[in-house]
Amino acid sequence: MRSIFWDDGLKLIDQTKLPEKLEVIECRNVEELADAIKKLAVRGAPALEAAGAYGIALAAREREFADVDELKEHLKKAADFLASTRPTAVNLFVGIERALNAALKGESVEEVKELALREAEKLAEEDVERNRKMGEYGAELLEDGDVVLTYCNAGRLATVDWGTALGVVRSAVEQGKEIRVIACETRPLNQGSRLTCWELMEDGIDVTLITDSMVGIVMQKGMVDKVIVGADRIVRDAVFNKIGTYTVSVVAKHHNIPFYVAAPKATFDWERTAKDVVIEERPREELIFCGKRQIAPLNVKVYNPAFDPTPLENVTALITEYGVIYPPYEVNVPKVLKF
Amino acid sequence: MRSIFWDDGLKLIDQTKLPEKLEVIECRNVEELADAIKKLAVRGAPALEAAGAYGIALAAREREFADVDELKEHLKKAADFLASTRPTAVNLFVGIERALNAALKGESVEEVKELALREAEKLAEEDVERNRKMGEYGAELLEDGDVVLTYCNAGRLATVDWGTALGVVRSAVEQGKEIRVIACETRPLNQGSRLTCWELMEDGIDVTLITDSMVGIVMQKGMVDKVIVGADRIVRDAVFNKIGTYTVSVVAKHHNIPFYVAAPKATFDWERTAKDVVIEERPREELIFCGKRQIAPLNVKVYNPAFDPTPLENVTALITEYGVIYPPYEVNVPKVLKF
Repeated sequence: MRSIFWDDGLKLIDQTKLPEKLEVIECRNVEELADAIKKLAVRGAPALEAAGAYGIALAAREREFADVDELKEHLKKAADFLASTRPTAVNLFVGIERALNAALKGESVEEVKELALREAEKLAEEDVERNRKMGEYGAELLEDGDVVLTYCNAGRLATVDWGTALGVVRSAVEQGKEIRVIACETRPLNQGSRLTCWELMEDGIDVTLITDSMVGIVMQKGMVDKVIVGADRIVRDAVFNKIGTYTVSVVAKHHNIPFYVAAPKATFDWERTAKDVVIEERPREELIFCGKRQIAPLNVKVYNPAFDPTPLENVTALITEYGVIYPPYEVNVPKVLKF
Repeated sequence: MRSIFWDDGLKLIDQTKLPEKLEVIECRNVEELADAIKKLAVRGAPALEAAGAYGIALAAREREFADVDELKEHLKKAADFLASTRPTAVNLFVGIERALNAALKGESVEEVKELALREAEKLAEEDVERNRKMGEYGAELLEDGDVVLTYCNAGRLATVDWGTALGVVRSAVEQGKEIRVIACETRPLNQGSRLTCWELMEDGIDVTLITDSMVGIVMQKGMVDKVIVGADRIVRDAVFNKIGTYTVSVVAKHHNIPFYVAAPKATFDWERTAKDVVIEERPREELIFCGKRQIAPLNVKVYNPAFDPTPLENVTALITEYGVIYPPYEVNVPKVLKF
């Protein structure tokens, strides 16, 4: 099952319910989709791109419109509203823009609705194909018997299907290689323990869960052959990904373990550098409660950034749907991605 | 308030109730103390040493005795019983033995009771003095305005009072220096968020909570001046401390941030090296549940070591009650500690 799909309405796997239960929810309007995005029921850059596009298709259907101009005005407002839900998620904006631009070409209410949905479906399909290609390129980096450490969830739940970092693992397994995965739990929201472990176990891929702080001991003991993570945004000098990725990259470098980042071309924002990116800070409650359990004093000060920048010098190679890109990135990224 | 003390009976802070509430419980007999130790209401090597000694004083008072021989027999049984509560806690046995040996020198019921309590009080007092000395030596390493990152809880809750790593911070604050602390939550049992944050806030020392995975970003951003952690055991080539300490040490080294370990002489096991130490693995449930909340698939594979070894080359200096010890440790540790 895809993480997000259109089936007589916009449906998605509610990732906040995993791993306890697999629940598919329907978003009946843009407000409900925005809530789903904000509470991370749908998350991961490529899945958010599809969510943004499907959001425009949804906006075109959430009520009746007097004429095509009213509908187009509504779509523009919906686009701004949706874009504000996750200000660091560049892919969300890309998806919104693509479906919006397609829709705005329509000349009737029906045509606008049709074009928005068609573009969203196309975008979702492209994501799966892209991940498949990325997986095939990346799988060349993995050898039979490798243990891959991953962080957060860059799997099929973070994309429409197949996954980026975990897509590479899936492709290697599909090629007949035996690959085992070590998943970091990824505090504070536990995407690693809740989602990565769940989806790998669903697919019968061997996975062992550790806390984020155990990255050191597993690398020290020689238990890790390669690291593969996803990315939220790749700028000219750094990879922005889930908070904690940078720590993993430093420990991997210390142990001379290859550190790969798997991400589609859309993740690259090559006009910017790390200092241009504002890192979103998330609610303090995420560190004070775990479910209903209080794990810190209620009034403690908290620092809770959502992402961190991993300098490109810590990255052994970038895995994209256009091929594996090695340093010097300044030269090779524009060459391979045709910027 | 001390973590454990005698005040017309044996009292201790129930650490399982923190940070939600500060509850001092009285152990009225050895059974109740054993329960408190087993459920980790009292924890930390130095605090357990005091608990063992006070336990003998308590055993001598929990009922009436016909004569001194009956009392001595009772104390020996109580010692065996208490020692069985945490079979790996060496310090617990040390405390029990010290109070028992002192008590057995008594020639009357009253004298035995008196000697047991006197020895326990002496042992507790020695722990506080030791931490005070360690704190004064360590405080010399801290400058006004420093931000200290710490891991787990090496504070007054882990000792009788003052603490080891946090004792250094307290001593610097007492000297009039402004010191701020960044506390890592310390998964999976959250001693950092539950205990370190609580005890520093109680003392009015500025503390900010982060997840363990944020060690990278706070160091990258220049938010950390020094790291100070405690230790469970220091062997000839490594410091064994709470799982995750090694990861912090690697990231600190990468950023050229001094990494200090504060621990009393009793922690040194200079006859052994890291390869001689068996690392205890703790229950898998610690990574699958947080309180009652399920955060991973129930049947996921888990790796959950309790400690990790930080090679001594990652340690800038060792802070002890005999002074600060710098490399080469092979030469300086035996010299300063008079092995």
